[in-house]
Amino acid sequence: MKTIAYQGALGAFSYITALKEFGEGTFIALRTFKDVFELVDSGKADYAVVPIENSLAGSIYENYDLLNSYDMQIVGERYTKVGHCLLAIPALQKEGALQKITKVLSHPKALEQCSCFFQEHPWIEAVVSTNTAAAASEVSAMGNPAYAAIASETAAQFYGLEILKKGLEDDPENYTRFVTIAKTGKTDHDADKCSLLLTLKHIPGALADMLKLFADGDINVTKIESRPLRGRPFEYLFYVDLEFIGKRQQDVEQLLQQLWSKVQTLKILGFYKSEDLHG
Amino acid sequence: MKTIAYQGALGAFSYITALKEFGEGTFIALRTFKDVFELVDSGKADYAVVPIENSLAGSIYENYDLLNSYDMQIVGERYTKVGHCLLAIPALQKEGALQKITKVLSHPKALEQCSCFFQEHPWIEAVVSTNTAAAASEVSAMGNPAYAAIASETAAQFYGLEILKKGLEDDPENYTRFVTIAKTGKTDHDADKCSLLLTLKHIPGALADMLKLFADGDINVTKIESRPLRGRPFEYLFYVDLEFIGKRQQDVEQLLQQLWSKVQTLKILGFYKSEDLHG
Repeated sequence: MKTIAYQGALGAFSYITALKEFGEGTFIALRTFKDVFELVDSGKADYAVVPIENSLAGSIYENYDLLNSYDMQIVGERYTKVGHCLLAIPALQKEGALQKITKVLSHPKALEQCSCFFQEHPWIEAVVSTNTAAAASEVSAMGNPAYAAIASETAAQFYGLEILKKGLEDDPENYTRFVTIAKTGKTDHDADKCSLLLTLKHIPGALADMLKLFADGDINVTKIESRPLRGRPFEYLFYVDLEFIGKRQQDVEQLLQQLWSKVQTLKILGFYKSEDLHG
Repeated sequence: MKTIAYQGALGAFSYITALKEFGEGTFIALRTFKDVFELVDSGKADYAVVPIENSLAGSIYENYDLLNSYDMQIVGERYTKVGHCLLAIPALQKEGALQKITKVLSHPKALEQCSCFFQEHPWIEAVVSTNTAAAASEVSAMGNPAYAAIASETAAQFYGLEILKKGLEDDPENYTRFVTIAKTGKTDHDADKCSLLLTLKHIPGALADMLKLFADGDINVTKIESRPLRGRPFEYLFYVDLEFIGKRQQDVEQLLQQLWSKVQTLKILGFYKSEDLHG
């Protein structure tokens, strides 16, 4: 049985994604993303599932930074729809239950993503929890009908809570892309995607040259993002995702060898099978 | 006297930035970014100052979307260091004031950026406000020494609050880049930067071709970010910033004309003078 680490608690979106990815296993909830990377690094977990970008909030820099500092590989990706529900303890009378709620707990990002709900219910106070599942757990433990949590449908099941309202999010097109990481990458599999972290040399046109190399090799750039490096003006870290459907991983690895003349630093974050969000 | 719109309230980081940019004027606080764009669009405000990216959280998609839907131009940029302070009503005894606080109000992003503070002070509840300055205003109005706000030093002055603690943020390298927008762009000025929003044609190597055009024209790409378009697989919106120190705006405009053969859509968000964060 595999051991899979994630940040949050049972019923969190990371947990839901880990469950989709692995089906079964020992799932270990940790408080911070750093703790998650540490556990895989120490060998106490085989895998970890961490969010890497969100369709509304963009790239999650913290996890890119951790991928950069730890020696790990991305071995898979998954998109999970983030659906926020209002959860409360089961009431004898469902009618009017929402009107009795004065306090709603959740993760700061979830509270921000449900700002319309709070505007429409001005008597409700939004209180920060460490994550959505922890909020559900707290509400369940308190047993007070004046408290509610914003969390997933799955969290409702885990903590014996009732769903008072679904679709609390301001924007329903809310997806998070998660990656599965491990100490060593896979090689004998059907990879069609690759993620890179790199800094370019101070040569005019270095970025254009790099992209021309990919274009000539018939490799699709599905993500590119520059991020200024702290305290190092005019230096940028690039997040690049490549898709190479119908090509062999070995050929792409060979092509990436040619990158070394153009980059200052290059870290291949892993080869893995892409998930088509639109499929 | 110019009228400048911003999102938030007196003492908010948008307000602080607007004040740095304009020195004097009529500053109008609005609840949402959309309200801010509307006011400039209607002609009731001459300018607006809005955040566009943050060094820790990345690009603020909402304002890029608004720049895309409204017919406006970026006419300037400013970096503001985001420093979070703990503000409370002036106490007779400063000693032990922190121990008496049970509730801290702020914007969800600010609460998230100060997570270490809340871990170290587990008796304090983090409560969401619409923005940092509104939190300061509420704490001031309540006059209760058990309440505090996380907001700027400037907010302390505006709302007659005392700074109990500075540097609450987990990561001190917290900068937000703001842009000044207006109905029409400037032409007769010392612009050395240009922002673009574009989608590329479905041609292999279109991205490489575009960047080669910039490289050949001796134009520096200071930001590039791809963002998947909703419901349109394999189509991406690109955020691009160009720097052209020592070149004339007209020459860059001419070069951008050549982009039309490579792009599907192109919106020039404006020509403006860059601010050097590291300068």
